[in-house]
Amino acid sequence: MIHVSIIGATGYTGVELVRLLGLRKDVVLDHLTSRTYAGQKIQEVFPHLYGSIDHTCEEMDLEQVTADSDVIFVALPHGHALPIAKKAKEKGKKVIDLGADFRLKDTAVYEEWYKVAHTEPGLLEEAVYGLPEWNREAIKDADIIANPGCFVTSILLGLMPLMKKGLVVPGSVICDSKSGTSGAGRSEKVDNLFTEVESSFKAYGVAHHRHTPEIEQLLTEMSGTETLIQFTPHLVPMSRGILSTIYADVTGGHSAEAIHAIFEEAYAAETFVQVLPAGMWPMTKSVRGTNVCQIGVTVDPRTGKVIIVSVIDNLMKGAAGQAVQNMNLLFGLDETTGLNTIGLFP
Amino acid sequence: MIHVSIIGATGYTGVELVRLLGLRKDVVLDHLTSRTYAGQKIQEVFPHLYGSIDHTCEEMDLEQVTADSDVIFVALPHGHALPIAKKAKEKGKKVIDLGADFRLKDTAVYEEWYKVAHTEPGLLEEAVYGLPEWNREAIKDADIIANPGCFVTSILLGLMPLMKKGLVVPGSVICDSKSGTSGAGRSEKVDNLFTEVESSFKAYGVAHHRHTPEIEQLLTEMSGTETLIQFTPHLVPMSRGILSTIYADVTGGHSAEAIHAIFEEAYAAETFVQVLPAGMWPMTKSVRGTNVCQIGVTVDPRTGKVIIVSVIDNLMKGAAGQAVQNMNLLFGLDETTGLNTIGLFP
Amino acid sequence: MIHVSIIGATGYTGVELVRLLGLRKDVVLDHLTSRTYAGQKIQEVFPHLYGSIDHTCEEMDLEQVTADSDVIFVALPHGHALPIAKKAKEKGKKVIDLGADFRLKDTAVYEEWYKVAHTEPGLLEEAVYGLPEWNREAIKDADIIANPGCFVTSILLGLMPLMKKGLVVPGSVICDSKSGTSGAGRSEKVDNLFTEVESSFKAYGVAHHRHTPEIEQLLTEMSGTETLIQFTPHLVPMSRGILSTIYADVTGGHSAEAIHAIFEEAYAAETFVQVLPAGMWPMTKSVRGTNVCQIGVTVDPRTGKVIIVSVIDNLMKGAAGQAVQNMNLLFGLDETTGLNTIGLFP
Amino acid sequence: MIHVSIIGATGYTGVELVRLLGLRKDVVLDHLTSRTYAGQKIQEVFPHLYGSIDHTCEEMDLEQVTADSDVIFVALPHGHALPIAKKAKEKGKKVIDLGADFRLKDTAVYEEWYKVAHTEPGLLEEAVYGLPEWNREAIKDADIIANPGCFVTSILLGLMPLMKKGLVVPGSVICDSKSGTSGAGRSEKVDNLFTEVESSFKAYGVAHHRHTPEIEQLLTEMSGTETLIQFTPHLVPMSRGILSTIYADVTGGHSAEAIHAIFEEAYAAETFVQVLPAGMWPMTKSVRGTNVCQIGVTVDPRTGKVIIVSVIDNLMKGAAGQAVQNMNLLFGLDETTGLNTIGLFP
Repeated sequence: MIHVSIIGATGYTGVELVRLLGLRKDVVLDHLTSRTYAGQKIQEVFPHLYGSIDHTCEEMDLEQVTADSDVIFVALPHGHALPIAKKAKEKGKKVIDLGADFRLKDTAVYEEWYKVAHTEPGLLEEAVYGLPEWNREAIKDADIIANPGCFVTSILLGLMPLMKKGLVVPGSVICDSKSGTSGAGRSEKVDNLFTEVESSFKAYGVAHHRHTPEIEQLLTEMSGTETLIQFTPHLVPMSRGILSTIYADVTGGHSAEAIHAIFEEAYAAETFVQVLPAGMWPMTKSVRGTNVCQIGVTVDPRTGKVIIVSVIDNLMKGAAGQAVQNMNLLFGLDETTGLNTIGLFP
Repeated sequence: MIHVSIIGATGYTGVELVRLLGLRKDVVLDHLTSRTYAGQKIQEVFPHLYGSIDHTCEEMDLEQVTADSDVIFVALPHGHALPIAKKAKEKGKKVIDLGADFRLKDTAVYEEWYKVAHTEPGLLEEAVYGLPEWNREAIKDADIIANPGCFVTSILLGLMPLMKKGLVVPGSVICDSKSGTSGAGRSEKVDNLFTEVESSFKAYGVAHHRHTPEIEQLLTEMSGTETLIQFTPHLVPMSRGILSTIYADVTGGHSAEAIHAIFEEAYAAETFVQVLPAGMWPMTKSVRGTNVCQIGVTVDPRTGKVIIVSVIDNLMKGAAGQAVQNMNLLFGLDETTGLNTIGLFP
Repeated sequence: MIHVSIIGATGYTGVELVRLLGLRKDVVLDHLTSRTYAGQKIQEVFPHLYGSIDHTCEEMDLEQVTADSDVIFVALPHGHALPIAKKAKEKGKKVIDLGADFRLKDTAVYEEWYKVAHTEPGLLEEAVYGLPEWNREAIKDADIIANPGCFVTSILLGLMPLMKKGLVVPGSVICDSKSGTSGAGRSEKVDNLFTEVESSFKAYGVAHHRHTPEIEQLLTEMSGTETLIQFTPHLVPMSRGILSTIYADVTGGHSAEAIHAIFEEAYAAETFVQVLPAGMWPMTKSVRGTNVCQIGVTVDPRTGKVIIVSVIDNLMKGAAGQAVQNMNLLFGLDETTGLNTIGLFP
Repeated sequence: MIHVSIIGATGYTGVELVRLLGLRKDVVLDHLTSRTYAGQKIQEVFPHLYGSIDHTCEEMDLEQVTADSDVIFVALPHGHALPIAKKAKEKGKKVIDLGADFRLKDTAVYEEWYKVAHTEPGLLEEAVYGLPEWNREAIKDADIIANPGCFVTSILLGLMPLMKKGLVVPGSVICDSKSGTSGAGRSEKVDNLFTEVESSFKAYGVAHHRHTPEIEQLLTEMSGTETLIQFTPHLVPMSRGILSTIYADVTGGHSAEAIHAIFEEAYAAETFVQVLPAGMWPMTKSVRGTNVCQIGVTVDPRTGKVIIVSVIDNLMKGAAGQAVQNMNLLFGLDETTGLNTIGLFP
C-alpha cells in the first residue's frame, strides 16, 4: 500500500488527485489538507465525492504529513512546495510538486518570472522534470518530481519528435494555446465568473505568461539548441481541456507524410500519446477525463510550415493524471495503473 | 433632457442601465457610482462600453447626486435604497429602486425575509410597485418606484390574466423558475465560477427564496384572495434569461382554447408582453437583450391543470429594461422609448 | 466471459455502452452495429475511443448477432427492438432494450403515445422493467429487460419512498424535469444545433411527452393507487444530466425531518442512490459519468408540500449505466461491476 | 425609402440582416426569400422576430425581386450570387453579396479553392471589395459589393496598419483564428450539434480553409508585396464572435509603443475600429451584437514579434453589420446609421 497525502486537496488539481487515487486498492489516502475547508468533510465540499471519500479536510501539519506518507502531492501555488520538499527530503519521502517550484533549473529565471526568491537551490538541482515521455528513467529514481505545467505538456509533446531530431528552425516556433477555465483555479475573481466567461473568448498573458521559460528550457534540452518561442494562452468557455496549435519552420524540405511518420515512430510505444491519422484533427472533449494527449500534424505545402495540434485534459495529462503517472513510475508500478480510461464523450 | 444617476453602476443591473441610457439623446448620465471602481473609467472596467461611454466611476456623494439628478436608479443590495430615497424625496427627485426595499408593503414580512429592519415605513407606504402592465397609471405619478424582482416579473405576467379573473384555485400554484447566472450578480463566489456552473444545473433557495412573499403579495392583490405559492428557483448555465414554468388548477372546466383566449385578450394592448400562438413555447434566447416577456399557455386535458411558460431577459424586463420603462412613464414619454429592439438571436 | 452486442452503437446511448463495456475484462464486445457508419472504424467516428476500441461498425445481421451474443443491448428508436427480442428469445439469449418497446404493459397505451402497433404482446408480458431499486429480484431471472426512460428514472427514484408508503395525495404530483441535450440523440435537427441551444433554455413536449404514461404506470404499481401526474421536460444548455424537481402533497402532517428519514431508510442499502443531508441540494455535474442518483428532499412548512430534487446522468443511470447494472444482475455479478466510479467534476 | 430584399433570409446571416434592417424607418423590407421556409411567417420560424417582423418567407422570384428592390443582399452559399448579380445589373440595381462569389479577383484562384467555375468574370472585374476602412470611396460608387469573409475581416483590420506601411516581413504572418459556431451556418450536421460542440475546442480546415486566398489577395494589395500567410481556424463553444491572434515579424526594430501608435493613428477616424490602450486585450463578448472591431497590439521584446489580437462579432462586422455599413455608403447615408449600438454584455 502506498500512503499518500495531498497538500491543497480542495483546488481543482487537488480534488482531481482525490478522484484518481481515492478508489485505488493499492493506495491509502492519508491527509487531505485545505486551509479554506479545514474541519469539513470533503464530500460535503465536493458532492461528486459523496459516498466515495469520507475524509475530513485538515490544516497541514508538516511533521505529521511527512511522517505518515510515502509520497506527498503538493497542489499549491508556487513558493509553497519549497519547505515541504525540504522536510520530506529529510524524512526520506517522495514529493511530486504540481506547482512551479522545481521546474526551472535556473533560479534567476525562476525569480525573474515568479518574482520570489528560490530558497532551495540544492533541492532544485536534484529535482527531476516529470514528463515521462521525455525522461522516464530519471523519474523512477527521483525524490522530487517537478510535474510539468499544463500548457507546457501540450506543447512539449507536440514538438518533441521534431526537437529531438533537430529539425526545427530556431526562433520559428509559435505556440498558440487555448485552455478551459479550470486552469485558472478555484479562485474567486470576477474574471472567472460564469457570467463573464460564457459565450466569450479572449487572450491573456500575451508575451509574458510564466510557462514561457519552462517551454523554452525543455525545448532547448530536447534540441540541444538555445530556443526562444512565442507563446500566447487563450481562455475557452469550457471547464477542461487544452488545445495547442503549434507552428514551426523545419530545416530541409519535408513532406506532410514524412513529418507524420516521424511522429508515429516517436510515439509508437507510448500509451498516453496518440498520433491521429493524417487528416484527423483532435478535439479536447475526446480526451476529457483521460491522461491522453492526442496529436494531429501536417505540413502546409504552400508555406512549408509544420502545423501541430495537440490536446490534453489540463487537469489530467496537464496536472493530476501526469502526477499519478509519475507516482506509478516512482513506485515501480505499471505506468498506466488507475489511468486506463476512456474519455467522457459527449 | 432627463438627468439620470445610477447608484451601483458596475453591477450587472447597473451597467445594463448604462447600456440602455448611455446613447439616448433625451437623457444625460450624470453620476455613475461604484465603490469598487471609483476613480476608474467605466469603459476600461467594461470594454463593451469602450468608445461609447466616457464617464469615470465615482464614490456616491448623496448631496451631489440628488442635487444634479431628476431621477436616481438604485442598483444596490437591499437596505441601501432607504437613505437615498429619503434624501431624494426631500429634494423632490424621483427614485427607481431595483432592489427589494420598497417592494413588500408589510415591514414585518420584509424584516422576516430580509433580516434587517425597515427604517422608512412612511416612504414604503407611498412607493408604487413598478409593473406597468399591472398598475401603469399609479406609476406615472409616483415619486418612488419599487422595480419588481426578476423571477417575480416572469411569474406575475404569467399569472395575471387568470388572477384578475379569479380563476385560480388558491394554494394550487407552483412556480418552477430557471435563471441565468447574471441574476446572481457580479459577486466573487466560488459557486458562481464558470468552472462550477458550466455544463451543470441545480436548484437553490428551495422553499425559502426571498421572491416568494413578493409574488404572494402581488398575486393576492391581483386576485383579491390570500394566495400562497410554491416557488423554486434553479440555475441554468447561461448568462441571461429567466423561464418560469407555472402550474395552477383553475375553477370550472376551461379548455386550452378558452384559457389561451383570456391571455390574448389580457395582453392585446401590451407592447412588451407577447402571447405565442397555441403550440409554440418560448425560449429565453428569443428575448435576449429586449424588454419583452413571451408567454405560452395550455391546459392539459388529462389533468385539467393550466401550464404557463413565460420567459424574460432577467437584466431587461426583469430589471434594467423595466426600470427604463418605468422612467419613461414617470416622465411622460412613450413607454417604449429606447426599448424598441429585436432580441439578439442567435 | 460475457459476449455482448450493441445494436445502434453509434448513438449517444450506444457509444456510452461501448465506453462502459469496452475495457471490461469479463466482457467481449462482439458486434457493434450502425447503419450510418457501417464499415467504418468506430474509433475514427468517435475519437474518444481512439486507441481503446478497434471494432469496425457493421450492418446488423440478426442471425449472426443472436448466435454470437449472450446479451444484446438495443439502443435504437422505439419499434426496432421487437423483432430483435423475438429472435433472441428463440435462441435463448438475453435482451436489454434501452428504447420504449417493452416499458408500457398496456399495448393500447403504447400505441396511443407511440403511434405504432405493438407486434409482440406475448414478449411484452414477460419483459421485466429494469429499475433495480424497484424490482431487483425479477430482473435477475428476466429474458427481456425494459430499461427505464431517462426522465422516468429520475422521477421514480425521487418518488418511490413516498409511493411505497402510500403517502402521496393522488393527482397532486408535478414533475418539472430538465435535461441536457444528449437526451435528444445524435440527430441532425436544427433545434439541436449548438448555435440554437447555447445560452438558452426552453420547455418542450408540454402536456404530451411520451415518458408520462411510463411514469404513471410505475407510480401506480408502487403505490397501488391509480396515479396521474403532470410532467414537463425542459432543455438545458449542457450535454449530460437530468434534474427533476418534484412537488407532491402528502397525507397527514409530516415534518421535513420525518420525510427525510423515510428517504434515508428507503435507500440505506442502495449503492447508486444517495440521499443528501438536509439542506444540501444536488447538481447534475456531481454525478456526471456515474450511475448515481443524488436526491435532496424537504417539506415547505408554509405550504405543507414535499419538494424532491433528484439528479442523474441521463446517459448513465438514465440509460447505459442502468443497462449495465441490469446486465450485471442478469449474469449474477456484483451489481456495481464496472460502475464504481467518481463523477467527473469539474 | 430604400427598398431592400434579402435572398436567403433564414440563415444566420440573413436573419441578422432582418434584425438590423427590419425596424429602420428609412428602409422597406420587400422580399425575404427562403427555400426551406417559403410560405411560413418568419416570426414563427424565428420567435425573436415575433411581434416585430410580419413578413412571410417566399421562394425567390428573381424578376420580382430585382424589379422591386433598390438593393439585394445575397446571403447564400457561393455560386448562387452570380445569376442574381447579373440580373440586378441589367435592371440597374445594387447587390451586396455576403458570399464568396465576388471576393477573389482571379477566377483561377476562385475555381481552385471553391471547385466551381466562375461564370461572370465581367461582373467580377467591376465588383468592389466591401471593407470600408480599406476602400470606402470605391464602395460608394459600386454596383456590386463583395462583402468580406468573417475571418478575413478580423485579420485584415488587424494587419492593415502595418501592411500599408510595408513593415511586415513577407512570409512571416501567422493567423490563428477562433470562431463561434454561427459561422458554420444553420446546417444540420452532426458536427454542429450542441452535444458535440459544448465544452470542447478544435481546429478545422488546417492548411486549406477558403478564406486563405482572400486574406492573401488583400494583404498583397495593401502592402504592394506578394504575401502568403498561414491561417488556421478553430471552433469555440459560443454562438457569436471571432478572435484572431496574428503574429508577424516586422522590418526594423520597433518598440511596442511605436507599433501601438501606428495603430492608433491608422484608426483614429474610424468609428468601428477601436484600438485598446496598451495592456488591454479584447474579448469577443465586448463586441457582441455590434459592428465594432476591437484590437490589442504589442511587440514581444524577447522575440521582436508583433502580436495583434482582434475581435469582431462574426455575424455583424463579419457579415450583416458590415453589409449594412456598405449599404449606408452606397446610398449616401451616414455610415453608422442603424449600427450605433453598445455590445450586449454580459
